[in-house]
Amino acid sequence: VSLRDFSNPKSRRTYLEKETGCDLSPIANVSYESDKNVHCENLIGVGSIPMGVAGPLAFDHGKKVFFPLATTEGALVASISRGCKAISESGGVVARSSYHGQMRGPVFEIDSIDEGLKLKKWIEENKALLQETAAMTSSHISYKSAKVKIIGSNVFVRFTYDTDKAMGMNMVTIATEALVSLIELNTKSRCVAVAGNFDIDKKPAWLNSIDGRGYEVWAEAVISKSVLDTVLHTTAIQVYKTWLAKCMLGSYASGSLGYNSHFANIIAAIFIATGQDPAHVVEGSSGITICEVRRDDLCISVNIPSLQVGTIGGGTNLPTQKAAMTLMGIDGNVLPGTFAEYIGGAVLSGELSLIASLSTRSLGSAHKTLGRNKA
Amino acid sequence: VSLRDFSNPKSRRTYLEKETGCDLSPIANVSYESDKNVHCENLIGVGSIPMGVAGPLAFDHGKKVFFPLATTEGALVASISRGCKAISESGGVVARSSYHGQMRGPVFEIDSIDEGLKLKKWIEENKALLQETAAMTSSHISYKSAKVKIIGSNVFVRFTYDTDKAMGMNMVTIATEALVSLIELNTKSRCVAVAGNFDIDKKPAWLNSIDGRGYEVWAEAVISKSVLDTVLHTTAIQVYKTWLAKCMLGSYASGSLGYNSHFANIIAAIFIATGQDPAHVVEGSSGITICEVRRDDLCISVNIPSLQVGTIGGGTNLPTQKAAMTLMGIDGNVLPGTFAEYIGGAVLSGELSLIASLSTRSLGSAHKTLGRNKA
Amino acid sequence: VSLRDFSNPKSRRTYLEKETGCDLSPIANVSYESDKNVHCENLIGVGSIPMGVAGPLAFDHGKKVFFPLATTEGALVASISRGCKAISESGGVVARSSYHGQMRGPVFEIDSIDEGLKLKKWIEENKALLQETAAMTSSHISYKSAKVKIIGSNVFVRFTYDTDKAMGMNMVTIATEALVSLIELNTKSRCVAVAGNFDIDKKPAWLNSIDGRGYEVWAEAVISKSVLDTVLHTTAIQVYKTWLAKCMLGSYASGSLGYNSHFANIIAAIFIATGQDPAHVVEGSSGITICEVRRDDLCISVNIPSLQVGTIGGGTNLPTQKAAMTLMGIDGNVLPGTFAEYIGGAVLSGELSLIASLSTRSLGSAHKTLGRNKA
Amino acid sequence: VSLRDFSNPKSRRTYLEKETGCDLSPIANVSYESDKNVHCENLIGVGSIPMGVAGPLAFDHGKKVFFPLATTEGALVASISRGCKAISESGGVVARSSYHGQMRGPVFEIDSIDEGLKLKKWIEENKALLQETAAMTSSHISYKSAKVKIIGSNVFVRFTYDTDKAMGMNMVTIATEALVSLIELNTKSRCVAVAGNFDIDKKPAWLNSIDGRGYEVWAEAVISKSVLDTVLHTTAIQVYKTWLAKCMLGSYASGSLGYNSHFANIIAAIFIATGQDPAHVVEGSSGITICEVRRDDLCISVNIPSLQVGTIGGGTNLPTQKAAMTLMGIDGNVLPGTFAEYIGGAVLSGELSLIASLSTRSLGSAHKTLGRNKA
Repeated sequence: VSLRDFSNPKSRRTYLEKETGCDLSPIANVSYESDKNVHCENLIGVGSIPMGVAGPLAFDHGKKVFFPLATTEGALVASISRGCKAISESGGVVARSSYHGQMRGPVFEIDSIDEGLKLKKWIEENKALLQETAAMTSSHISYKSAKVKIIGSNVFVRFTYDTDKAMGMNMVTIATEALVSLIELNTKSRCVAVAGNFDIDKKPAWLNSIDGRGYEVWAEAVISKSVLDTVLHTTAIQVYKTWLAKCMLGSYASGSLGYNSHFANIIAAIFIATGQDPAHVVEGSSGITICEVRRDDLCISVNIPSLQVGTIGGGTNLPTQKAAMTLMGIDGNVLPGTFAEYIGGAVLSGELSLIASLSTRSLGSAHKTLGRNKA
Repeated sequence: VSLRDFSNPKSRRTYLEKETGCDLSPIANVSYESDKNVHCENLIGVGSIPMGVAGPLAFDHGKKVFFPLATTEGALVASISRGCKAISESGGVVARSSYHGQMRGPVFEIDSIDEGLKLKKWIEENKALLQETAAMTSSHISYKSAKVKIIGSNVFVRFTYDTDKAMGMNMVTIATEALVSLIELNTKSRCVAVAGNFDIDKKPAWLNSIDGRGYEVWAEAVISKSVLDTVLHTTAIQVYKTWLAKCMLGSYASGSLGYNSHFANIIAAIFIATGQDPAHVVEGSSGITICEVRRDDLCISVNIPSLQVGTIGGGTNLPTQKAAMTLMGIDGNVLPGTFAEYIGGAVLSGELSLIASLSTRSLGSAHKTLGRNKA
Repeated sequence: VSLRDFSNPKSRRTYLEKETGCDLSPIANVSYESDKNVHCENLIGVGSIPMGVAGPLAFDHGKKVFFPLATTEGALVASISRGCKAISESGGVVARSSYHGQMRGPVFEIDSIDEGLKLKKWIEENKALLQETAAMTSSHISYKSAKVKIIGSNVFVRFTYDTDKAMGMNMVTIATEALVSLIELNTKSRCVAVAGNFDIDKKPAWLNSIDGRGYEVWAEAVISKSVLDTVLHTTAIQVYKTWLAKCMLGSYASGSLGYNSHFANIIAAIFIATGQDPAHVVEGSSGITICEVRRDDLCISVNIPSLQVGTIGGGTNLPTQKAAMTLMGIDGNVLPGTFAEYIGGAVLSGELSLIASLSTRSLGSAHKTLGRNKA
Repeated sequence: VSLRDFSNPKSRRTYLEKETGCDLSPIANVSYESDKNVHCENLIGVGSIPMGVAGPLAFDHGKKVFFPLATTEGALVASISRGCKAISESGGVVARSSYHGQMRGPVFEIDSIDEGLKLKKWIEENKALLQETAAMTSSHISYKSAKVKIIGSNVFVRFTYDTDKAMGMNMVTIATEALVSLIELNTKSRCVAVAGNFDIDKKPAWLNSIDGRGYEVWAEAVISKSVLDTVLHTTAIQVYKTWLAKCMLGSYASGSLGYNSHFANIIAAIFIATGQDPAHVVEGSSGITICEVRRDDLCISVNIPSLQVGTIGGGTNLPTQKAAMTLMGIDGNVLPGTFAEYIGGAVLSGELSLIASLSTRSLGSAHKTLGRNKA
């Protein structure tokens, strides 16, 4: 039995509910007819995107994960599914994550370089005090560190926190306001803005690519020669050549931060389905895909340095979002690291499938078939 | 009468339908229970995001526009609305757009620099032939130009097309496949991939910021001293100072392409509501906000160099998306330029409101009030 | 007979003078004891750098070129020489150049977007007038085109000129001042600065990497397996692997514009020797080296998108500089394109040698031997 | 008495020798006719650049510093001198520096993400061992820290060292080779290249701008209204406006890392004069100038995040270089921080003068007068 065997959403849901034990009834029909518990002012109704499912993708620890994908791009779900199949048949994906913490970056005004250097020193020497102060704003937050940059009469501070299961942008704003008050009380420096773009949030930036922010994810798989042939109709060397030209040289030629083929597509589809902030697709679009030929097999991996995810808070409390999360085996009891690794696996599947497709010159025809209206 | 006067989605819809003449019934309740006309394989249901409304925003040509915003970020709709109010009370926004066309960037393999230079020359000398060939793939597409970059044994070509009312990524892929076949027939060069990241699509890149892609939008407004005081509780000089520190110096300090405060938030909310591709928020997040103090007034403007929008195709055919578009006064009969300018106005409103809020240090409290569950 | 056979500068000069027909006496001894003909105010004497020679390097058109290198970095000349040897023994280098023209980018102040769009249109529609005006400032300059960018109340114009045999920054400044006056006379826009960083000169920038500026150079060579073995003590696959890790992935990891190993070293050494502007090493440091394994041979190439060179003007009139140029077979009668291609050949030699050296892990020992004082 | 009063190099040297106590005889006449103690293989003679002098510039601690400038760009010395005068008459410059250490970034090959994470952990846990090993390679080096980046099957390590009075690139290469051997002995990971571009040396890169490398320098001065008027013939508001358009918006428009007007000019001229590596002008060209209007005065400052300087080693041992250094009051007994601060002061002077000149539209005429041959 496979997902391809079903002819409508209802039968697919029934199948998936049996397979995973989740309840998908919330995604059958949606309305927001009361302002209650909805964080959207002037509510007028529901914005919708069709939700498809890709997978399952086998992970090295034994789990098999389905991916809920909210998208209107024909061929995207089919393409990711194809990638999941190729990876699963080759032994599965290894995905790992590292938490860099969530950042908020206030900017302070100073009268002189010397005052700036003093502020930097004060922040370094008062870590315990900053920790205590941050902890008083929420039981879920803990202060970790600060990166300081002095430019002209401005001091930019990138405060880093552990925000537990939440993506945490609201928490870090509130904590940072407390730290800012503490600093103003203890130094001569005045805060210009609590968010001074040294965070840096929802804008593409090398700082996040280099240092990481939120969760950094790696996912890798070795695709055997026979799977490359039977599932993807290509070879390791063809994929490699396409990858090198497109993801490395083409991205350089464009002055890009995204040395990949379409991270943003996969991340947007999962983020919208599961209640993550869609504006954080921006950070997710930066990162790199790497290919390598090992004998006739293809080793492919992705590195996403700055993925902003949470398993509680934000849109994760809404019914369709919660249901989509449980389809992946994720809920608010799980730390976001596992969730991030699953997304890494989906991104790897999407990269493999698209680069393989480009390597055989079949992209246009797939979109012709799946991207136009069906009778 | 104002939007604030209503207590639930239904009454707001009734009010808006009267004001604008649109039909908002599709956003009351959504389900996708058949695969028909939905471009999403393995469909299992509906992904949803609450839809709020901001505005109206007065434009210089007399139109007043409401903005449908699909978001789960508390305070976002209220903040944009506040910006709309401040701008409208100050005489409205001037928004202009310029169409750079849609791009697809194939990469070719060459044996030598000389072959690369020959390919470049062939493309320059055969414009008419390329135009004819592209025109045969669709009546809605026309070939405009090519930018060529030779790197090692690769030639990257950025083909530019006019795709009429569609955002056009599918159309340009199909047209480019035809051009690629033509080129392979007439030169020695072989295509490695039809999409070689010199387009560059859904990845942040300086090429799009510098040359523009899709629609480039400018929007500007002069906010009077009294409106700054009564609506935004700040002054021109305070906003200016916050802008300079955050959007200019802070973005530089982070190595960013986004010299703004939160373009991505506004663009994501409108894109999801109106059926644009959410992964294109990536391009929209790059761009710049500029402030200037003129006597005691504030001149504020935004430049979005690469906004990918269409009034037909993609998700624009779905019922909630179509309804959201008509709320803005947009449908498939309108060229996307007007739509892009409206989005520019919304982005300007969001920038003004957030920077003003930061300048008075009220960000955290707004999120505390609007970002948490209401009883 | 080879350069290695000589024991002192004098004997090497004698040999080179015989080989190339140039006169190297000016580099034996230098002093600047009069202000006359020296463009350096408050002259106090001579700044000096030892000058070595690398090569000869065989070019595909039959020429063999020696490279004068002013440097204090031990091992640099020896390393470039080694690269020249490997390339020459493999059939020589193919180098090509393309002239993008020299740019000056004034910035204008505007009152509104509409005024900015009008200025853009005026510039596009008055090309002939701009050409005439520019031509009146010098018989060596001709106006080519303009790229316009509107941001806030500023219009940035990147005027492009052909400056003949000169690098041309002074010429384009003077011509642009004339164009600026013309524009101010004919439009409402006022010039803020004749050089508004949209040129962009002596600062690293994606605009120059993407569009090119001055001369763009390509140089490529195929190094045979046996030469890799005997001259460079490595293999194609080892060099390839080192290149991919260092020049591609390492440069990405650093957020760099230089996807190469040390362009700047070679360009600095030739620029100082031949009287080019040393601050233009900045532009020369951006660019890419590409490797490819073809059977057991190594295909290696470089692309330098923005090389600022002239055969007249600037420092090229000084005696040591003029002598160094003639050693390369270049003088003020030659267009800079040939000179740029020779530099491309030297850069390729330097890249090949360093990456090969890294691939065998012999970098430190070379510097230990050649970088410390000899008895 | 001022520098302007003298009519030839000799009389200027005599004056400066009296003023500073240095010996400038080595710059009167130069030849390199023996290979001994010169780190340049195949030596053929001397590369020369005219050396001028700017200053003195008053520093807040009381020192007055002259700047030796090797350049062929007419007007550069005069312009920097004008800046020095304006700053000195306004109370002098405040310059500060911070040492980030010198870096070398090897790249290792790994078989899996897990092996990469293990390598990262090993490096973090064996700091003492790494310190000991590095210390054995030189008494002048000490190991400080490591930054690790895992990408695909590569681990990039940015080792940071204190290299005392030397710029230190050779020292860190040798030390890193020892660390690499230690790591290969203790882990499964193999080194691909000792220098993997995560350093990142002689290529423009956001990593160095964000984290700093070598010396980070800040210099600031407040120029009074009257000095702006009498010395620079401009006003604070005119300079501010020019700066904002050029150094901020123009640099953004170009996708630049250099938010300044011409750091590279000043740094190149001092580096060549004093025996620093001219290829390091690349790093020096990145950085930012900031202006601010305080009442009618102008506060101007520069931040150079990555300045590579040493007071011993490299070219600093050569006679003209040593003499030029002593003219600044610097020799091998001084830590490079002071030297870096002096350079910061010179850069600030050059920025002030050029931006002021642009603000009055006098750039072209200055170059016309000073950049062409004098009778």
